[in-house]
Amino acid sequence: MKNFADRILTEIIEKKSCVVVGLDPRPKNLPDELKDSLLKTKKVSFADMAIAYLEFNKQIIDAIAPYAPAVKPQSAFYEALGYEGIKALQATIRYAGQKGLIVIADVKRSDVPSTAAAYSNAYIGETALGTDSEPAFGADALTVNPYMGADSVKPFIDDAKKFGKGVFVLVKTSNKGSGDLQDIQTPSGKIYEITARNVAEAGNELIGEKGYSSLGAVVGATYPDEAKTLRKLMPRNIFLVPGYGAQGADAQMVKNCFNPDGFGALIVAARSIIFAYEKDADYPKKNTWQESVRNALIKMNRELL
Amino acid sequence: MKNFADRILTEIIEKKSCVVVGLDPRPKNLPDELKDSLLKTKKVSFADMAIAYLEFNKQIIDAIAPYAPAVKPQSAFYEALGYEGIKALQATIRYAGQKGLIVIADVKRSDVPSTAAAYSNAYIGETALGTDSEPAFGADALTVNPYMGADSVKPFIDDAKKFGKGVFVLVKTSNKGSGDLQDIQTPSGKIYEITARNVAEAGNELIGEKGYSSLGAVVGATYPDEAKTLRKLMPRNIFLVPGYGAQGADAQMVKNCFNPDGFGALIVAARSIIFAYEKDADYPKKNTWQESVRNALIKMNRELL
Repeated sequence: MKNFADRILTEIIEKKSCVVVGLDPRPKNLPDELKDSLLKTKKVSFADMAIAYLEFNKQIIDAIAPYAPAVKPQSAFYEALGYEGIKALQATIRYAGQKGLIVIADVKRSDVPSTAAAYSNAYIGETALGTDSEPAFGADALTVNPYMGADSVKPFIDDAKKFGKGVFVLVKTSNKGSGDLQDIQTPSGKIYEITARNVAEAGNELIGEKGYSSLGAVVGATYPDEAKTLRKLMPRNIFLVPGYGAQGADAQMVKNCFNPDGFGALIVAARSIIFAYEKDADYPKKNTWQESVRNALIKMNRELL
Repeated sequence: MKNFADRILTEIIEKKSCVVVGLDPRPKNLPDELKDSLLKTKKVSFADMAIAYLEFNKQIIDAIAPYAPAVKPQSAFYEALGYEGIKALQATIRYAGQKGLIVIADVKRSDVPSTAAAYSNAYIGETALGTDSEPAFGADALTVNPYMGADSVKPFIDDAKKFGKGVFVLVKTSNKGSGDLQDIQTPSGKIYEITARNVAEAGNELIGEKGYSSLGAVVGATYPDEAKTLRKLMPRNIFLVPGYGAQGADAQMVKNCFNPDGFGALIVAARSIIFAYEKDADYPKKNTWQESVRNALIKMNRELL
């Protein structure tokens, strides 16, 4: 079973990109071509919208697969369509895998140990069914929330080890209110620093041949000063960095998320890539929406070089 | 739109019960009767198992509906079966509602505000679809995680207000490791105390006619001393209390979760009720499995009187 950190680093080197494309479809932002062909009826059902999401994702994946190591579907947007949405999410994960992309399921799950194990089985492990067991979602990695403590995170680490998967723990998130709890000062440092030290320590048992751990951390691009501290506290953990583009961060702001070796960070962009046609003067006259998407990714890759 | 806290208190009074039955099906614990009729094939699929879960839940709901105010499906066990599981979860929520039960979706979601809004829409609000909007899951309440701060919780509070729904924020959870982060001491008290004060304050705008707020708190039955402190910090917030039965807590240990008026706590039991037949000497000779389940609930109601 190949270590997840080794797998993702191999892809980063091969594709010369550390960008993770967020697959976060939203009804109002789908390109007109898709709406016109798939959402013709006046009354749109969850099933119709889910089919449109899947088609949108497939075309995005086709456009970006050679230029990015990974995609990150945000579960909330699929859950908002009920089980039809989840069906589209599963199909998206499968399709991305077939096209050689690593899939990080952004689910931010957390629960008591026996329940956390069920979540872990669902996304990165296998669910027991009679005498057999099968992967339900089959993602390569997922995001988890640390509020409930070490025993709530351990089932995910166990599956990561067993199945060669990755886990990203929320440490310092990109939203404006992230400091409310994460920045609270304690005698042992701020809460996000304590979480970071726990991640660094727990990650030691998942370090691959390339020196990085399959236990990573979510660190918002919107907090470059905190990223500097966190890079030191978690030298061997890969940062999953949301906040680029639509949330306001740029290439300069994510510099601190990288190690001197040029590795250690995956920069996430969703809206600024997948809805790039909305701001592309050449769409729809010169560029198709898929070309706008691909060009936005290639431009972002260059900015991060 | 009736306030959620008023609705749940009305049910507690009417049914003389503050028990929330956890709907947490697991393949190995399903009664033989169900396995024999629904899981006959050697190779069990996700769809087969999901159908068995739904049938199990429906029969549980029929057995307990007159004796409990609410049920709490734990999403992890359904997600472990992929979209087929989610389909069963949606049908379970619908069926429970038809039988007059309040449904608390135990999903422990959290994300940045725009994404949290999608989660909130999914579970307690409505998802926009074209010119219309529709509820995807249609639960009465859900659980949320506070690690990401106030702005990540706000979309849920907004929907609770708009749709007469409830939100339970994790404060002090029932697992052994809950103290790792929640018990950290700060100059303003422990983390769970800070979270509790935030819940109390944010909950003020959701207080109903009966004096309780629709913004509640998850407080583990396994920490009675902490519950005492938390009861004082959150006098008007309803506690959702897991940990009774299989996790080790008893009626004595949950006393501190109640206010002197006898209200303010919902005590959750899952395994000790829904799998009661496993420990019932009268099953299967004298009792059906459904009778074992009902009897376990009636016994628990008496213990909590």
